Amino acid sequence: MNELNKWQDYLAENRDRFIQELVEFVKIPSISALSEHTEDMNEAGRWFAKRLKQAGLNHVQVLPTGGHPVVYGDWIDDPKLPTVLIYGHFDVQPIDPIELWETPPFDPVIKNERMYGRGASDDKGNLMSPVAAIEALLETTGRLPVNVKFFAEGQEEIGSPQLPRFIAENKDLLACDVVLSADGLQMSVDQPTIDVGYRGMVAMEVHVQGPANDLHSGLYGGMVQNPIHALAHIVASLHDEEGRVTVPGFYEDVEELSVQERNQMAEIPFNEVDTKERLQVDALFGEPGYSSLERVWSRPTLEICGIGGGYQAQGFKGIVPAEAMIKLTCRLSARQDPEKITHAIQNHIDNHTLPGVKVSIKDRESGAEAYRMPVDHPVNLAAAKILTQLYGKEPLVARCGGSIPVCGLFLKELQAYTVGFSFSYEDEYLHSPNEFFRLDSMDKGQKGYVLLLQELAETLKK
Amino acid sequence: MNELNKWQDYLAENRDRFIQELVEFVKIPSISALSEHTEDMNEAGRWFAKRLKQAGLNHVQVLPTGGHPVVYGDWIDDPKLPTVLIYGHFDVQPIDPIELWETPPFDPVIKNERMYGRGASDDKGNLMSPVAAIEALLETTGRLPVNVKFFAEGQEEIGSPQLPRFIAENKDLLACDVVLSADGLQMSVDQPTIDVGYRGMVAMEVHVQGPANDLHSGLYGGMVQNPIHALAHIVASLHDEEGRVTVPGFYEDVEELSVQERNQMAEIPFNEVDTKERLQVDALFGEPGYSSLERVWSRPTLEICGIGGGYQAQGFKGIVPAEAMIKLTCRLSARQDPEKITHAIQNHIDNHTLPGVKVSIKDRESGAEAYRMPVDHPVNLAAAKILTQLYGKEPLVARCGGSIPVCGLFLKELQAYTVGFSFSYEDEYLHSPNEFFRLDSMDKGQKGYVLLLQELAETLKK
Repeated sequence: MNELNKWQDYLAENRDRFIQELVEFVKIPSISALSEHTEDMNEAGRWFAKRLKQAGLNHVQVLPTGGHPVVYGDWIDDPKLPTVLIYGHFDVQPIDPIELWETPPFDPVIKNERMYGRGASDDKGNLMSPVAAIEALLETTGRLPVNVKFFAEGQEEIGSPQLPRFIAENKDLLACDVVLSADGLQMSVDQPTIDVGYRGMVAMEVHVQGPANDLHSGLYGGMVQNPIHALAHIVASLHDEEGRVTVPGFYEDVEELSVQERNQMAEIPFNEVDTKERLQVDALFGEPGYSSLERVWSRPTLEICGIGGGYQAQGFKGIVPAEAMIKLTCRLSARQDPEKITHAIQNHIDNHTLPGVKVSIKDRESGAEAYRMPVDHPVNLAAAKILTQLYGKEPLVARCGGSIPVCGLFLKELQAYTVGFSFSYEDEYLHSPNEFFRLDSMDKGQKGYVLLLQELAETLKK
Repeated sequence: MNELNKWQDYLAENRDRFIQELVEFVKIPSISALSEHTEDMNEAGRWFAKRLKQAGLNHVQVLPTGGHPVVYGDWIDDPKLPTVLIYGHFDVQPIDPIELWETPPFDPVIKNERMYGRGASDDKGNLMSPVAAIEALLETTGRLPVNVKFFAEGQEEIGSPQLPRFIAENKDLLACDVVLSADGLQMSVDQPTIDVGYRGMVAMEVHVQGPANDLHSGLYGGMVQNPIHALAHIVASLHDEEGRVTVPGFYEDVEELSVQERNQMAEIPFNEVDTKERLQVDALFGEPGYSSLERVWSRPTLEICGIGGGYQAQGFKGIVPAEAMIKLTCRLSARQDPEKITHAIQNHIDNHTLPGVKVSIKDRESGAEAYRMPVDHPVNLAAAKILTQLYGKEPLVARCGGSIPVCGLFLKELQAYTVGFSFSYEDEYLHSPNEFFRLDSMDKGQKGYVLLLQELAETLKK
């Protein structure tokens, strides 16, 4: 009881410093998608490594991957103790549309116990909670209840392209009994969740080339194919009007939900009226035959997340543009193979290319498979116990429609499941302007990690 | 003969200065479409007015229109002499995609007797030729062979929105027997043309609003309508796969070409292989049942000249974007009513809007009707005579697929036809990066205007 109070007091006494540290961390514009931020990625890695050292972790190092770096650190007391790998990421999403930010994305502002800034919630805020938890335990008890390895990456937002190789080549370094992911969500501030699945992903940029230059639409309009028209023809061909993906073979390997799974999902509270109001849309929309949660948690999607071509500034420009492009991403459900889906989409695009333009795939991510884990995994049960303590309410079993590519890699290479233990919420504008993190989530996360590590000493006792 | 030599000598002696003046003129970034260039538009107007004064014109003034200004000046000797109104424009197209310019668009470079810069060919180069012609005649003969009014506008590239009202309210000021347009093309450096028609135009921006913010595609992908998908559905619905516009009523008022007109067009040399090579496309493409020249000169088109939405920078961003937009322009053929076509398109868009998004028309130009004039108009015949002298070859009768909205206004308000007398060529990258103007066209234009004004003293003798 005394010991318990000590780490709690330590967290309370150092709360302002922890907040200040998160401000510092968010200030580093570590956008992994943009090559002009490569040095910021390195800087974020160095910053986080330094913070791990300060917390008392050993063997801290920034490791090269061939792409953005990863950060490793550990505290290993006794090889007979169970080993927990804590995972998170220090890269963030791009910030545009910049004009919609009400505060500067990389100069965090705290208002009403919320920190506003890019990456505050996804994932820097969450990533810092286990660091503070470890520091508090080491400072107040001199040790951790289990062996801990810390592994933070700088590629999550771009699909972790170098991680398959890095993890395969560093199995010993990363070997563990279980992974705790400091990246992910709780359902709401009133309702914790245990996520037992993430969707996989595929991403590609499709480029349509028309004439070599923009042409005067008076002199050439009607005589040459307009690449925007050809691109729209492709995009429109990817879904039917009701929202089904029409790429042949797209749903082929998708596992239908069992009656039990559908019943489980139906129990999850989902307020359609509130959701429409919050998103400011007249209607929700998606694949027929599924509820909104079923669509997001279990069904694959194909989304155009960006489109561009021709003149986009003020007024008009009388041209037939030279080129146009889309950024296409899929979220995959269990058993879909990213490679196979990529080829199916490429074939479909080839079959829907109108004459007079050339279509090419300009950029491609390596893709990630969906991830599933057993509901009754002992670490899930341990996490559920701690979440019940933190929220005063038992967690619901849920899935997350997002993708954490590394979960599948940990399972494949380390034979370790990843249990989500993270405290963001979907209303925190992840990936959008005005992203924020609740400071209360920092408190919950710090406390939660202390309690969970203590719990796992029992759960995973060898 | 002596007098003839004098103006020719004057033009030759002052050639370097004329080039330098055009450099100065092109340096003013008078982009009418962009409001940040409003002051540059005024500056271009003032610059041109000063130049008209220097040339010896009287009553020179920059006149307000409610939008970008116009410039007027005249030289009126005897009310009984015929009056020629010379028309052109001093506004230019936007410069993006900026990265494709090989020289700075507003810092003109002269290479191989070509001046590179935005507006060098469309229309500042052409606009300066009659000014030099008038100066040469006034300096060497003390008079002009006809009364001349000069009318230059700053709104041509945005559809001349304030000119219908301005011209209607200034009929006396602009009253004339004929308009000569210093905006337009010759077919090639070897082949002059008399253009007897321009297409009309319509332009609008269509905006599709999805959720209020960009959403995380993992958390919401599959649950809400993606505005890019909805927009692509609209764009794809505007044409069939063969290139016909599918908006109901779009072709309703279009006058089919007569057998005679088709035969006339078939006589115009058009090399499909060369055109494909120059534009670097595998195939030309357009409405079935018409030749390329018929498509561009006589058929209406609907072109998306710009599209944008979501994330367009490097890499990927896992979002369902909040919004997307297109810039839609039509080129109209004779008898199509811009207002009616606008409504037909709006109706079509309403009928092709998928659920879950809101579609609105954000911006609309006033539109312009197509313009036609009789081939055997006496001023066409006079222009043909001078072109034959300049090129050593008789002009072909042609049309231009571009739009000069003011021609229809001059006809309606001043009862004066507009005869194209301009020396750009379609390979000069009008509206595209690396626009250029041949200095030889400056020489031809200056000489041509002197000769044509002299000729018109006879042609239009009252």
